[in-house]
Amino acid sequence: MIIVLRSDATEENIQHILEKAQKIGLKANVSRGVEKTVIGLIGPEDALRVIPLEVFPGVEQVIPVLAPYKLVSREFKKENSIIKINKDTHVGGQRVVVMAGPCSVESLKSLKSVAKKIKDAGALVLRGGAFKPRTSPYDFQGLGEDGLKYLQEVGKELGMATITEVMDPRDVELICRYTDILQIGARNMQNFSLLKEVGKSKKPTMLKRGMSATIKEWLMSAEYLLANGNFDVMLCERGIRTFETATRNTLDINAVAVVKQLSHLPIVVDPSHGTGRWGLVGSGAKAAVAAGCDALMMEVHENPEEALSDGEQSLKPDNFNNLMKDLGKVASAVGRAI
Amino acid sequence: MIIVLRSDATEENIQHILEKAQKIGLKANVSRGVEKTVIGLIGPEDALRVIPLEVFPGVEQVIPVLAPYKLVSREFKKENSIIKINKDTHVGGQRVVVMAGPCSVESLKSLKSVAKKIKDAGALVLRGGAFKPRTSPYDFQGLGEDGLKYLQEVGKELGMATITEVMDPRDVELICRYTDILQIGARNMQNFSLLKEVGKSKKPTMLKRGMSATIKEWLMSAEYLLANGNFDVMLCERGIRTFETATRNTLDINAVAVVKQLSHLPIVVDPSHGTGRWGLVGSGAKAAVAAGCDALMMEVHENPEEALSDGEQSLKPDNFNNLMKDLGKVASAVGRAI
Amino acid sequence: MIIVLRSDATEENIQHILEKAQKIGLKANVSRGVEKTVIGLIGPEDALRVIPLEVFPGVEQVIPVLAPYKLVSREFKKENSIIKINKDTHVGGQRVVVMAGPCSVESLKSLKSVAKKIKDAGALVLRGGAFKPRTSPYDFQGLGEDGLKYLQEVGKELGMATITEVMDPRDVELICRYTDILQIGARNMQNFSLLKEVGKSKKPTMLKRGMSATIKEWLMSAEYLLANGNFDVMLCERGIRTFETATRNTLDINAVAVVKQLSHLPIVVDPSHGTGRWGLVGSGAKAAVAAGCDALMMEVHENPEEALSDGEQSLKPDNFNNLMKDLGKVASAVGRAI
Amino acid sequence: MIIVLRSDATEENIQHILEKAQKIGLKANVSRGVEKTVIGLIGPEDALRVIPLEVFPGVEQVIPVLAPYKLVSREFKKENSIIKINKDTHVGGQRVVVMAGPCSVESLKSLKSVAKKIKDAGALVLRGGAFKPRTSPYDFQGLGEDGLKYLQEVGKELGMATITEVMDPRDVELICRYTDILQIGARNMQNFSLLKEVGKSKKPTMLKRGMSATIKEWLMSAEYLLANGNFDVMLCERGIRTFETATRNTLDINAVAVVKQLSHLPIVVDPSHGTGRWGLVGSGAKAAVAAGCDALMMEVHENPEEALSDGEQSLKPDNFNNLMKDLGKVASAVGRAI
Repeated sequence: MIIVLRSDATEENIQHILEKAQKIGLKANVSRGVEKTVIGLIGPEDALRVIPLEVFPGVEQVIPVLAPYKLVSREFKKENSIIKINKDTHVGGQRVVVMAGPCSVESLKSLKSVAKKIKDAGALVLRGGAFKPRTSPYDFQGLGEDGLKYLQEVGKELGMATITEVMDPRDVELICRYTDILQIGARNMQNFSLLKEVGKSKKPTMLKRGMSATIKEWLMSAEYLLANGNFDVMLCERGIRTFETATRNTLDINAVAVVKQLSHLPIVVDPSHGTGRWGLVGSGAKAAVAAGCDALMMEVHENPEEALSDGEQSLKPDNFNNLMKDLGKVASAVGRAI
Repeated sequence: MIIVLRSDATEENIQHILEKAQKIGLKANVSRGVEKTVIGLIGPEDALRVIPLEVFPGVEQVIPVLAPYKLVSREFKKENSIIKINKDTHVGGQRVVVMAGPCSVESLKSLKSVAKKIKDAGALVLRGGAFKPRTSPYDFQGLGEDGLKYLQEVGKELGMATITEVMDPRDVELICRYTDILQIGARNMQNFSLLKEVGKSKKPTMLKRGMSATIKEWLMSAEYLLANGNFDVMLCERGIRTFETATRNTLDINAVAVVKQLSHLPIVVDPSHGTGRWGLVGSGAKAAVAAGCDALMMEVHENPEEALSDGEQSLKPDNFNNLMKDLGKVASAVGRAI
Repeated sequence: MIIVLRSDATEENIQHILEKAQKIGLKANVSRGVEKTVIGLIGPEDALRVIPLEVFPGVEQVIPVLAPYKLVSREFKKENSIIKINKDTHVGGQRVVVMAGPCSVESLKSLKSVAKKIKDAGALVLRGGAFKPRTSPYDFQGLGEDGLKYLQEVGKELGMATITEVMDPRDVELICRYTDILQIGARNMQNFSLLKEVGKSKKPTMLKRGMSATIKEWLMSAEYLLANGNFDVMLCERGIRTFETATRNTLDINAVAVVKQLSHLPIVVDPSHGTGRWGLVGSGAKAAVAAGCDALMMEVHENPEEALSDGEQSLKPDNFNNLMKDLGKVASAVGRAI
Repeated sequence: MIIVLRSDATEENIQHILEKAQKIGLKANVSRGVEKTVIGLIGPEDALRVIPLEVFPGVEQVIPVLAPYKLVSREFKKENSIIKINKDTHVGGQRVVVMAGPCSVESLKSLKSVAKKIKDAGALVLRGGAFKPRTSPYDFQGLGEDGLKYLQEVGKELGMATITEVMDPRDVELICRYTDILQIGARNMQNFSLLKEVGKSKKPTMLKRGMSATIKEWLMSAEYLLANGNFDVMLCERGIRTFETATRNTLDINAVAVVKQLSHLPIVVDPSHGTGRWGLVGSGAKAAVAAGCDALMMEVHENPEEALSDGEQSLKPDNFNNLMKDLGKVASAVGRAI
């Protein structure tokens, strides 16, 4: 922790800080510059982080030196984590795993039909929402447990792993019974009650980045999962909110490489939400693979015109199939497979 | 709903849209310009909003005409809503209500001590967190039910109404037993499970704006509360996330007047979070009152250096007392009282 | 300058940095923590700022301690600067100066007519654009030198100071002959060629904040003016670009108090651009005065429906007159006058 | 142009708008819904765009139907524009053109040395700044005309085309004499005086996107160039400003596909500024090629530790050489070459 003092800070101000430091067992290092004095505090930053040093008299700025996350950090674990979903599917290895399916599970029949095509195109994981977070209380809220059943049935029949979103801490147990991967959505990235329950479940989990979350905050939310016992965590970049309105979100492609530097956890990219328009999904998916992502999540629907949610960003199976071929070439260009 | 077609849209594309419109019972109005054709669809937009018209062939842009919220809108209810907290305290009337207190309830003794000073300075509502949303799993998470008990005890003793945050749908009932107002925090603005439970509780509720929520999304979240039966809702502007790093958040002062135009619900401003630095709180609070807010929420702590959370943005009782006097003058300049 | 090293930095990495520091005459202070080593460099940061320490092996983060601006800083000059416009008008003193007028000068007649009403309402400075920055090459670009002549004529006749925008370094001398204050627009805040010319002119200058400029960058642009000899500089907050689309810009009300802390220069607020809608201007203006601004700039037009630019955010003279009365009360509530 | 009326708009309000429309020769189409009336105006939107319809009584919202740009639009010209730089170098065709070099020209010797390596690695265009836009007036401002001479000399000797930034309308002629491509920097994207001069020059020009410019505004700035006679325009995405601070800018990878849809102009991506850290440049460059860009611009320096500007985001020649090989594979995966 580094404390920069104001140029009018007094000797008394300095002593006051040093006493505080001593009280909590930190070594202090005072460096008096021509214009400003800087105090470095050495020791466990956790003890310090909870003390609002900004309000101490004479303090201009407080700068943390250590990252606030630990278990998710590359420093805690050097090698990449590989998350085992089932015996055939691992995220974080050489193969870029594709998760695809409709935004919402709408019926058993439609799910089965689209899932077959998705599987044939090369996807390993089937997605489908049963509990849907909707901006409007008047919009379709999902089929609930029926949706989970359909997802499980189709997944088993086709031999695909499944992923679905959990929104409520009370639903964690229920959803764990039906699905292989839990998804925490962008709007719930800092729903700490949910994070704690999902952490305790130890189920493989994909944590989406909040719409306006910094990468640091996102890693802190992942830290909640790991700190509660769940190390099978994947991070999912799904676009951030910016001033640009030509797209629904701004896909933060830089985040792929940044996360790889800071953390050992695998990184998934969702170009469907990251762009918000199906005509842009292909370009975003190719960019994501080239940038080094470990998995992709994409929305596919047989008849987007009739989709109950997110139709505007859903690919048709034909487009998806063609895209998968293109993605195979890009993956191979960067030493991966799909 | 207005549909702008691409300049290369065909007659067949137009017919396809008109058929869809007819099927769901809407009147269509086709306007063929020199460069582009525009279709206006007349009727209930709710039916339409769930149809992804963007994916229909030939469509360039879909523009909703009606606001997606209803119950919260000024058109639904012309006159300002006044929320009754208890017999002495109403939010939305001539008096600007001040809610103040520590970020977290830390002990019965410290809460009682600061509450007295806050009350003497003119605050009507006592705030204090018992369940705390913390970015880090390693930070102080609140006293839980003990915190609620202390808050209730001090509120009763001093005759102040109380407000505290609810983060988990499972806690709604518990918290309702102890407090007069529920607060939904910025991170939970789109926690729809929580919104539904709080809506059903019918307890006066203050809904904070999400860090990167548009005003429209914020009103949609309030709509969840009203649609579930709770009309005693206050909206709280607490700063939004922007590129500026000199302050913790950017207090969106425009939001006060915009909300007043769009909705009948009272608007609260939280300059503590809206600035993130105690030295800026006074300026933000005065601006908020001048802009027309109905209530203020501010963090006050007797010894910010020892605060377990948000010390850097907490006022000391003396500063708070002086500020209240200044705020009284500003309120009076705009025809209000404090 | 503080250099935080990576946890895997070697002793050789440290020596390499220390040698570099010594070469440019800086004292170094090495502080070896349990997890990370931190090096503090003491001496002129200017010498350091141009060295990309981030690329030195082993470096994780480089943190400047000193502000990059000097002449504009509160540390350079403790007391508030008061800018003398003419013998009656000073910006930065007890009186909040109001600058008002049409967005563009459209004709001598219309300018004279609106100026009289503005003056009667209490404005001291007449604004009007002669060279207009327009997003579209097909929009009205201003009357050029004729506009300047009209502005000068009306200003003289009514005894009002005048302000107009300069966009091109080649126009600085011309505009200086006609007007009392130069305005540098938001789009040109980092037009360094223009800043240098305006700096040399020594004419009172109002520097608008760039649409996405941090306060620090804004102060750096002001530093260009002072470093080139012009100390008569006012800063103007005019709204920043955020994700919110309900308003044209987000008026950063926090910036008023932040600028007052960091700099001795006066701060102007422009609620016309800061909101973008005339119905919100009054609320923004009152908030700005309550927050402590030194001057206001507002667009006023006798017939906004016919305005050649910015009609949607222009007040009519009657509204402006009423607003001025309200602003007088708010100013008085915070110890100022209008 | 579509005008949505408020639900309380009167018949008189409607008539007032219709009269205005008639006066400027537009056909109007009134559509009366249950809740709201909508007026469609058919005819040249340019005439309308300058009229502030938002201030007409009863108007809630004004929605333009036509894009405000014309010459740059895909509708104006269906096929991709290919910009001829010299007989060997064209931007917009099958080959992805790489532009590389130091941020600033620092000396003839260093420029020649790095240029050779860059050329050997496969770059076709040499970049180097002679006039530098610097946030601080105290930073290195470039070598000026000497820098231009060195750039020309090295370009000729190695047979490479050259590109350099122009910041001042007074320098356009001078710089045109020395270089093959003019660059307009992000900070000058809306420097309309500069845009007009560069437009008249008819020199191939690369227009960088402003830090917080929407894609629409960026295309409008390009429209300034084309409307002034210069059709040899390339657009350059270089990262936008967002709340994320882990990177200098957020590379908006979506912009590549969006620009391709909206415009016939070639799109360049600058991953050096788009990330701001050399360790992320490779990932960003690969993503850009996969997403479909027509050219890349990257900063390369033989000794970033000694670079006079942007050292932290400059690649060393070895890294650049390796990256070029990787980029070749990605280009080939998407049907392009490098």
